[in-house]
Amino acid sequence: ELGAEGIGLCRTEHMFFEGDRIQAMREMIMAANSAERSVALDRLLPMQQEDFEGIFRVMDGFPVTIRTLDPPLHEFLPHTEHDIETLAHATGMTVEQVQNKTAALREANPMLGHRGCRLGISYPEITAMQARAIFNAAARCVQDGVVVHPEIMIPLVADVEELRRQREVVDTVAKQVFAEHGVVVDYSVGTMIELPRAALTAAQIAEQAEFFSFGTNDLTQTTFGLSRDDAGRFLPMYVENGILPVDPFVTLDQVGVGELIEIATERGRSTRPDIKLGICGEHGGDPASVRFCHQAGLNYVSCSPFRVPVARLAAAQAALGDTERDK
Amino acid sequence: ELGAEGIGLCRTEHMFFEGDRIQAMREMIMAANSAERSVALDRLLPMQQEDFEGIFRVMDGFPVTIRTLDPPLHEFLPHTEHDIETLAHATGMTVEQVQNKTAALREANPMLGHRGCRLGISYPEITAMQARAIFNAAARCVQDGVVVHPEIMIPLVADVEELRRQREVVDTVAKQVFAEHGVVVDYSVGTMIELPRAALTAAQIAEQAEFFSFGTNDLTQTTFGLSRDDAGRFLPMYVENGILPVDPFVTLDQVGVGELIEIATERGRSTRPDIKLGICGEHGGDPASVRFCHQAGLNYVSCSPFRVPVARLAAAQAALGDTERDK
Repeated sequence: ELGAEGIGLCRTEHMFFEGDRIQAMREMIMAANSAERSVALDRLLPMQQEDFEGIFRVMDGFPVTIRTLDPPLHEFLPHTEHDIETLAHATGMTVEQVQNKTAALREANPMLGHRGCRLGISYPEITAMQARAIFNAAARCVQDGVVVHPEIMIPLVADVEELRRQREVVDTVAKQVFAEHGVVVDYSVGTMIELPRAALTAAQIAEQAEFFSFGTNDLTQTTFGLSRDDAGRFLPMYVENGILPVDPFVTLDQVGVGELIEIATERGRSTRPDIKLGICGEHGGDPASVRFCHQAGLNYVSCSPFRVPVARLAAAQAALGDTERDK
Repeated sequence: ELGAEGIGLCRTEHMFFEGDRIQAMREMIMAANSAERSVALDRLLPMQQEDFEGIFRVMDGFPVTIRTLDPPLHEFLPHTEHDIETLAHATGMTVEQVQNKTAALREANPMLGHRGCRLGISYPEITAMQARAIFNAAARCVQDGVVVHPEIMIPLVADVEELRRQREVVDTVAKQVFAEHGVVVDYSVGTMIELPRAALTAAQIAEQAEFFSFGTNDLTQTTFGLSRDDAGRFLPMYVENGILPVDPFVTLDQVGVGELIEIATERGRSTRPDIKLGICGEHGGDPASVRFCHQAGLNYVSCSPFRVPVARLAAAQAALGDTERDK
């Protein structure tokens, strides 16, 4: 209704929170070893698969970008006494053991902690389960004549080697699933560029990525060394007093974050000239930011649904600006 | 004894922790307004001044770099029941009020929170007190014939405007103190380059900075999006499995962090050709990192005292390498 042309970011963690899933997810996190973890993952697989199938059928032909698990595991753990007891009962652990494990997963700076692809590197079976859910769903859709092109996006990559290893997991599962179903699904693998080091090493990362999605929220946090959750204590004062011209979480900082986007765009294209480039984050709904992305040569913008009309208008105006200048 | 030639980093927060100081510091943090804050700062001033005077007299002539307040305020607050009660009593607050204020200062990601120059921007009177302590101490030393050149270093700058405003506070206090004492102290003001945005905007920052000190610990944390406190959960596995060749907190990452240092070096010098450049952090004691710094054209290395011999040897070898190549 609002004019979107695909799903630019499907955060799979929502698929872990609803109903029974959160319980299976918690058991997966509490698992003492890989075998226990597999049991919990086997329960999550059909639920995620069903979600993906629903999305693919609705989107029939429009691109769908799926981000693998991103948030720190601590976010999934129970806080209420009742939920802790339920988890203890389900896992055969004592309440104290659950509490200890939860405390052990607490981090000093979770934004910079064990999250993103660092989880998939630590537990490749999580990425494998997600890939299987995606490809099973896609294969069933293809068999029914639905057009599907899943784009699998690996988050928080700082070094190409992380992407190479996660991609290997995805490609291996893809081959298995395609053989099982007797169909081949057209898919691509790419990454978020949301850390300064990813932007700087984009030439190497592009060897393993068919697309880059600039995660401008996290890229702003790391480039400025500024936690969005904590900035409320001083950022409004910074803007009020003219120390910063605008809130960089609202309007993209072209000088710092923008230069990293330009560096990554240039270096990514030097390795892979046809690499697909876009941004995803709240900036996708800000006209000045969309204008910058157009000038930097990005191909697409992903944002919250309610911001789609704003983004489309800004992109059209930016494109018109080009035409005017060309005259 | 170990061959050091100056104090590359004098962390002033230690001066807030010992003995009575921590109590005055806590009262300063609990202050409800600027007037209350001034009362607590007036108590801290003579203590800091005495510390600086002691350092200047011992260092007689060797450079001393002093970093203004850097850690999040939460780190100074009391945790034990006894300390909380003491603070409540001293400030006329209830225990509950102290606890509430302490809770309010807790941050989701303190590494990326209200710290560094963000504190000095929020409370310029803290920076002013520190500057007064430094210049009072330096003026007394100069009057006694001691050679003093304090280098005042503003931490966690992301934008030149932060440095400009903090520098203004320092320069204003300097003028006042010099007039009061009838002496002029030779001093300089510079900044840490420890955020990617500072490295990228180094040309602007150098307009306000007589020196850059690369804070490679924090620059590594932000460039990789990696909290040093939390990395223990996966970084050893990354190195063991060859995902990263080395621990970037031990040996400087030349590809990512190193490129930012090179960018900042080049851009800083383009504005101010004689800018003094160095690194400060654990990397200063790692031979490969020192070699890189030499090649990048830095002037000095600051590190823990016990690492000084290693750093000197590595710097000498790097310099010798140049000579060998020149033959």
